[in-house]
Amino acid sequence: MVDTRDKKVLELIKRITCGERRALSQAITFSESTRKDHRDIAKGVLSKLNNNNDKTVRIAVTGSPGVGKSTFIESFGLDLINKGLNVAVLAVDPSSVSSGGSILGDKTRMELLSKERRAYIRPSPTKGSLGGTNLRTQEAIILCEAAGFDVILIETVGVGQSETMASQMVDVFCLLLGPSGGDELQGVKRGITEISDLILVNKCDGQLKNIAETTRAEYSKALQFFRRREIDAPSYPKVLTISSIEKSGLRDTWKEIKNLITWRKQSGMFFKIREEQKLTWFHREITNCINLRIENSEKILKKKKELEKKIRKGLTLPLNAAEKLALEIIR
Amino acid sequence: MVDTRDKKVLELIKRITCGERRALSQAITFSESTRKDHRDIAKGVLSKLNNNNDKTVRIAVTGSPGVGKSTFIESFGLDLINKGLNVAVLAVDPSSVSSGGSILGDKTRMELLSKERRAYIRPSPTKGSLGGTNLRTQEAIILCEAAGFDVILIETVGVGQSETMASQMVDVFCLLLGPSGGDELQGVKRGITEISDLILVNKCDGQLKNIAETTRAEYSKALQFFRRREIDAPSYPKVLTISSIEKSGLRDTWKEIKNLITWRKQSGMFFKIREEQKLTWFHREITNCINLRIENSEKILKKKKELEKKIRKGLTLPLNAAEKLALEIIR
Repeated sequence: MVDTRDKKVLELIKRITCGERRALSQAITFSESTRKDHRDIAKGVLSKLNNNNDKTVRIAVTGSPGVGKSTFIESFGLDLINKGLNVAVLAVDPSSVSSGGSILGDKTRMELLSKERRAYIRPSPTKGSLGGTNLRTQEAIILCEAAGFDVILIETVGVGQSETMASQMVDVFCLLLGPSGGDELQGVKRGITEISDLILVNKCDGQLKNIAETTRAEYSKALQFFRRREIDAPSYPKVLTISSIEKSGLRDTWKEIKNLITWRKQSGMFFKIREEQKLTWFHREITNCINLRIENSEKILKKKKELEKKIRKGLTLPLNAAEKLALEIIR
Repeated sequence: MVDTRDKKVLELIKRITCGERRALSQAITFSESTRKDHRDIAKGVLSKLNNNNDKTVRIAVTGSPGVGKSTFIESFGLDLINKGLNVAVLAVDPSSVSSGGSILGDKTRMELLSKERRAYIRPSPTKGSLGGTNLRTQEAIILCEAAGFDVILIETVGVGQSETMASQMVDVFCLLLGPSGGDELQGVKRGITEISDLILVNKCDGQLKNIAETTRAEYSKALQFFRRREIDAPSYPKVLTISSIEKSGLRDTWKEIKNLITWRKQSGMFFKIREEQKLTWFHREITNCINLRIENSEKILKKKKELEKKIRKGLTLPLNAAEKLALEIIR
């Protein structure tokens, strides 16, 4: 059994590193699977790949629905391909909470980009959470890099937990905004603004051009009030206007990303950030391992069900029941 | 020591159930604390309170920043107070990721409501996450109910994990929207729409009245395409237009909430939902207990630090390191 698995792992690695698209897709599917045999293959592959590749650029693209993320990623991705780069897109489809399915299922997004030989687009329906990046996205990044992709674009939807996770996996965090007033400078958006390296005001074309420029100026000004982070290069975060339709601002976006990475590599920040990200991954994975442990032990599962019965009947507070069960799990 | 604690617990319970505001605030502070002695008091109090109070109504109010959540909660809360109800608001301030502080710190929100004797407003800065409901919100609900509050309004910011958690703590989930086109019917919003019982199109006043009505009609139509959930009363989810400024639609909102709860109580759904929510709380709390265990064991912490060193040097994959550590923690 183990021999067959080792053979499978080695074969998969060989095919992935040769740039075989189907092998990459299969490895990502194994990584996302909940089946033990699939996960074992994925872990085998991942353990043998280089997860210290500092030549690649990992970029998060986030923003509210309707702001034009897919269109931007398509135009930007095509631009990078024309520069001779290989571009992988991990497009995180929002999953519907009650149906569990991908809502963009039958809608073809990024049609032009998906036809390019140098591009790879992978939608990851995420079950259970309101759309987002998860622990397996980190593994997909390593797999794409092993397959020879230079730039990994991670699209995330909405604002919240998913963005926090994405920011813990990328080198550069881009926030896409629509042209609009300063109203949005409040609330949860500020949290996002503060973890952004680049703020891209999209739709800077046609009648919206002036509003987009005003928005850019407002955000630039507002950013001055924020505390500079240790990882911010001088004059970063930056705010740019772009138009995915007129293809303007795309080259500047790439230029700013490259400048930021150069600065961070020279200052050592780039490596420090990636190191911290690995630790975050480690911590999240510990919780994950423990959850699997509960699911796989008959004794613990039985105790868990007994406690659940008591909770249902209102005989015990969930808080107290959890402490009791934890004693069973923990050494 | 234990005697003193028991005395403290009993005294706090007495003061809370007598409706003493300061005691309620103190108990919530103990609940949110990371100090063991504080948590022990909070747990002591919670264990002795009724967490099966089905006379109360727990309502989540969610929506994007700028949509007018605070203004709505203030108007709606004042309306309920005039009906003789006691209203508690758990207003979840968005915390800034990098500063950790509440961004609305010096801005007084819900000024009128906060002056009411029958109202209690509690802002909970949430550290580490991009604004939101957390495990302790559940405890705050029970504490508020013990203090005699009939309606608990839970304000959440943004869209994502925080909304999923809020939906797992309330009887009725309300989504506040601004008047706008059907563009927003996509993406993460659909996830939110599907867990909403009431969709309130706010700002239905002045020049926005027509757009608000159109938005209401569009959402009503769109909802027909969604699968009805077992917990949905006939003709729910409903879409209403409201104006916090003109105070219109507030009575209808309360009427629809009451109707829904009546239907759910008659069908048994109300109790089923609350039961499921307790189980979810249990599951989340288990993870929490295990994390505390790691933090409190010197041996495990030492092993953890060794592994972190290896990860930093790129000698081991975080995934593999996590599995090794999990073996130390798990029985």
